Amino acid sequence: MTADTLPTDAATPTLARPVVPGRGQLRGAGLGEVTLTGGFWATLQATNAGATLQHCLDWMERLGWLANFDRVAQGRTQAERPGWQFSDSEVYKLMEALAWEHGRTGDPAVEELFITLTDRVAAAQDEDGYLNTCFGHAHQAPRYSDMEMGHELYCFGHLLQAAVARLRTAGEDRFVAVARRVADHVHREFGPEGRVAVCGHPEIEVALAEFGRATGEPRYVELAQLFVDRRGRGLLTPVPLLSPAYFQDDVPVREATAWSGHAVRALYLAAGAVDTAVENADAELLAAVVQQWTRSVERRTYLTGGMGSRHQDEGFGDDWELPADRAYCETCAGIASVMVSWRLLLATDDVRYADLIERTIFNVVATSPRQDGRAFFYANPLHQREAGSDVRQDAENSRAEGGVRAPWFDVSCCPTNVARTLASLNTYFAAADEDTVTVLQYAPGELAVALDGGGQVRLRVDTAYPADGVVDVTVLSVPDRPVDLRLRVPAWASGATLTRGEEPDVPVPAGWLEVADVHEGERLVLALPTTPRYTWPDPRIDALRGTVAVERGPLVMCLESTDLAAAHDLEDIRIDPTVPLQDGDDGAVLARGAIQSTVGATGSLPYHASPAATRGATRPVDLTLVPYHQWAERGPAQMRVFIPATTAVGG
Amino acid sequence: MTADTLPTDAATPTLARPVVPGRGQLRGAGLGEVTLTGGFWATLQATNAGATLQHCLDWMERLGWLANFDRVAQGRTQAERPGWQFSDSEVYKLMEALAWEHGRTGDPAVEELFITLTDRVAAAQDEDGYLNTCFGHAHQAPRYSDMEMGHELYCFGHLLQAAVARLRTAGEDRFVAVARRVADHVHREFGPEGRVAVCGHPEIEVALAEFGRATGEPRYVELAQLFVDRRGRGLLTPVPLLSPAYFQDDVPVREATAWSGHAVRALYLAAGAVDTAVENADAELLAAVVQQWTRSVERRTYLTGGMGSRHQDEGFGDDWELPADRAYCETCAGIASVMVSWRLLLATDDVRYADLIERTIFNVVATSPRQDGRAFFYANPLHQREAGSDVRQDAENSRAEGGVRAPWFDVSCCPTNVARTLASLNTYFAAADEDTVTVLQYAPGELAVALDGGGQVRLRVDTAYPADGVVDVTVLSVPDRPVDLRLRVPAWASGATLTRGEEPDVPVPAGWLEVADVHEGERLVLALPTTPRYTWPDPRIDALRGTVAVERGPLVMCLESTDLAAAHDLEDIRIDPTVPLQDGDDGAVLARGAIQSTVGATGSLPYHASPAATRGATRPVDLTLVPYHQWAERGPAQMRVFIPATTAVGG
Repeated sequence: MTADTLPTDAATPTLARPVVPGRGQLRGAGLGEVTLTGGFWATLQATNAGATLQHCLDWMERLGWLANFDRVAQGRTQAERPGWQFSDSEVYKLMEALAWEHGRTGDPAVEELFITLTDRVAAAQDEDGYLNTCFGHAHQAPRYSDMEMGHELYCFGHLLQAAVARLRTAGEDRFVAVARRVADHVHREFGPEGRVAVCGHPEIEVALAEFGRATGEPRYVELAQLFVDRRGRGLLTPVPLLSPAYFQDDVPVREATAWSGHAVRALYLAAGAVDTAVENADAELLAAVVQQWTRSVERRTYLTGGMGSRHQDEGFGDDWELPADRAYCETCAGIASVMVSWRLLLATDDVRYADLIERTIFNVVATSPRQDGRAFFYANPLHQREAGSDVRQDAENSRAEGGVRAPWFDVSCCPTNVARTLASLNTYFAAADEDTVTVLQYAPGELAVALDGGGQVRLRVDTAYPADGVVDVTVLSVPDRPVDLRLRVPAWASGATLTRGEEPDVPVPAGWLEVADVHEGERLVLALPTTPRYTWPDPRIDALRGTVAVERGPLVMCLESTDLAAAHDLEDIRIDPTVPLQDGDDGAVLARGAIQSTVGATGSLPYHASPAATRGATRPVDLTLVPYHQWAERGPAQMRVFIPATTAVGG
Repeated sequence: MTADTLPTDAATPTLARPVVPGRGQLRGAGLGEVTLTGGFWATLQATNAGATLQHCLDWMERLGWLANFDRVAQGRTQAERPGWQFSDSEVYKLMEALAWEHGRTGDPAVEELFITLTDRVAAAQDEDGYLNTCFGHAHQAPRYSDMEMGHELYCFGHLLQAAVARLRTAGEDRFVAVARRVADHVHREFGPEGRVAVCGHPEIEVALAEFGRATGEPRYVELAQLFVDRRGRGLLTPVPLLSPAYFQDDVPVREATAWSGHAVRALYLAAGAVDTAVENADAELLAAVVQQWTRSVERRTYLTGGMGSRHQDEGFGDDWELPADRAYCETCAGIASVMVSWRLLLATDDVRYADLIERTIFNVVATSPRQDGRAFFYANPLHQREAGSDVRQDAENSRAEGGVRAPWFDVSCCPTNVARTLASLNTYFAAADEDTVTVLQYAPGELAVALDGGGQVRLRVDTAYPADGVVDVTVLSVPDRPVDLRLRVPAWASGATLTRGEEPDVPVPAGWLEVADVHEGERLVLALPTTPRYTWPDPRIDALRGTVAVERGPLVMCLESTDLAAAHDLEDIRIDPTVPLQDGDDGAVLARGAIQSTVGATGSLPYHASPAATRGATRPVDLTLVPYHQWAERGPAQMRVFIPATTAVGG
């Protein structure tokens, strides 16, 4: 798409975007304001549109998750029902993806599918607005009889988020009307006059806040605030073997200092808390979430941006508990982290949120879908000791782990979450305020961003990012007044330079790079060095002591057994961090290391009187690392992000 | 107790013991053959008798787990019932403990309690022998309607093990008759003519095998074999989010190469497999379990002997997956490991099984009970980053973790398992065969061990073990023919010596130390060096890279924040393994280390461009380590077994 064909048609809702705060430092870009014209993210968006959406639909049809709605509509509910109690939410997340996709591209087939699904969902709505296929009908448990694990409000939340997408991309329609009745039902049941309760899985908070913004109904935002405020007061009965922290019911949101418990729950709740804090100008609540973000990023986050250290409760670990092998890093938690950071970025204009978004989308979100868009990682570990075994492509994977992307899961939250995120991803790439356009993420594309102060800035971005760090920005047009451009210099980009027109290169530090008073036709070249680099774990992370990782630009790299000679075991590989890294072909990085053979089976405990007891000979080896987001694309493999160093570097 | 008062009364069943194989290399000592007269283990046995047994009874009375039997007897069962579906088993494990305790000491109060409990249990037995308080009665789910998680056969297994203890210490009685009816019921329902099924939690196998031995009924052993053989063939429906390996239903026992899944389940199954292999002279099955033991000890076992690397499924991890912080090392898994090793020792006479038993009883079993016998560890991690918080002593702990011993648990398998193990622990301390007595474990005491070839060897052992490694054995009497004595030289005891009478010291290697032709009145002094030593983790254990542990004799040592100046954080401590360790007071070990301060909060991810990015100044510090089994006895504390080394030792 060239500048000449930038969307202007009313059918393509230029300004539609997932998050529209009532106040803040920045306004995120609309769907039509940033068009990705090629490269890394455009390819993922195209695969999402061309494969993943239909893939999700087919699986939910096949498993009966869609037919659940028909059964309610036809009064044919049974005690047994396909899918978990939250399966409705997958349908809504797919609908949200469809709404954004249609908003972005105007594809009539996508629109038709949205309407078909609307018919099936709407038919299942009860008279009073309640809409759930698992509770409240013949042979089913009563409504709200299991606030802990019933997920009714969680499902409503995803329905409302789909309605937000629909309202902003197509305006009022039947689906939005369904959502209004749902929101009104929730308000009656749980509002100021209703029962004092919360849902075991946060989601209704962020959804009600945005639905309130999208509809201009403050009472929905107020209800979101009520749910946020009720949390952490022991309203939920602890589930056996899980603590109240599992669903963030242990401490009120404004008193928590770090995220804990189930990661997706914690992060959805935090996103809702930011929304309500912004709407109410509640500086205390906003500061609490900023504090939680800061401490959690500093001590509970993986190099990939992944969050969640424990399989047990899909949860955050303690500070510094970041095992590579048992990293959970659920794809949905990565998406939820982006949701939180995006809201904090809009509220505060602090560049570190955009930095974390970049890290997370390249190394968690982009890692999940297989290249063909028809299989997904649920957990995203940073170390796979044994290669996984291929999973059947016609069966859902009941386990959310194993080192191989699976077409579907027993709990299949991630595929539809990836779909809705990719369909709207371009909205996270730029922001605007009065007289400045900020380019947040880099990809080849066209920007036509409206300034809050009036007028539009149009830019073309040419880049091979992330393969190459040169970002070439051409100013196509600016309003007839002084306007500024801001570019993000990522924290990793030490040695970055800017070339403005014919002026000499100037070094630019990490953070916001402000380019004042840009004019039509001028060219800015930001050069972000993608020389591969070693990255060292903080010594407080016990699980990573004595190891080092490799990064290149925004990409975390990994070593896969696929790139070793067949006779070698990845677990024997050491990397020599005294040898500079080199660029290889196709974005690979070349390193030097050693094969550390071990003495064979000892038949006794793996603890020895000498540190070298089981060490055999070493010999040098050349290593090829590939981007982590590509791992296991060439088949099941052993994999490591953090590689033991040949040269120990102390405790 | 002196030699003059060694039990000879028929009321004290000298030869009673938990495991009586039909063949094998060794015969374990009977309850009356080894009398612990003081020191470490006698103290634990006394506390068990004086506090823990009543403690367990009181909790089960209070929670209604005992009243469950009354409700069945009185036809008052309801849909809701206190306790998990396996709570009956805790009553049986307590009864097993009472039986051993009465057998060992003849305490009439213990006998009275056993009979009282027998009355309540017996009254709940159905006409056909079925006996379970959770299934099969009014308002309850039908019998065997949940083979995966119902635990009916598991509960029966513990009932049968209690009956074995009773039969061997008191002979046939009403409880044994109850057990016979249960065993016959199980035989009818699941035997060769019955349904082809297994229980989600192995236990019935090991119990039926021993009950068959104790009653002389081969058909019970055959039924045990049937359950072992059925396993691993997908007879159980996988539980959501857990794989079939969780309950060892993924691969047949004789094909498995290492233990995996839920550790207690895997180990109880293995114990039963050894029993049936021994009874049937099934060398292939025995070899399979030996192989599983070998590989699991080599790659899936903690320095403490603890097993289970994952909280998620209370299970074994992959090879080399041995995180210190998230070590599960369930107390029950330690006990189950002792059960397996004990059976393999009797079958094979391989000293390594006795070595692992020593490591496990000192560092897992003895770690669980608090000094007063009224609180217990369920999980036994090797690293506690943040001190736990005190738990209420009047409430059961719903979580089996947290760094503080709890009086009771929601799932409270460990306290009664500790009780039954301690009550019979002296039987694991010696063994006999034709003309040899083997002393397996060291404690002050009197031995009066019958030889299979006739006659009795009487020994007195004087030692301060494990505080001191000198074991002084006086031969009190021997039969009038050549008999040998064997002493175990533990694998850790490098530099051990033996002094026989007036002869000069001779160095003795690890393994069985055979002392031929011992004669009455002679004295043997085995000196096991307890000089504290550094122990290095195998480089393949990622979680422990760059750390070192300290051991002293059979004891794993740990560093507790309790022994640091208040201003210091245990997480900043490094140990200098180039400085020799010293003995401190009261069994403590003194080491030299450094405090490695870290740069304060960075507000960014914990991954840096330099390995020293967050390292501040270091200063030397003296360190005091205490035995791991004592940790948290002085209050909640940070704790480490593996301590980062100041001097890195390479990957």
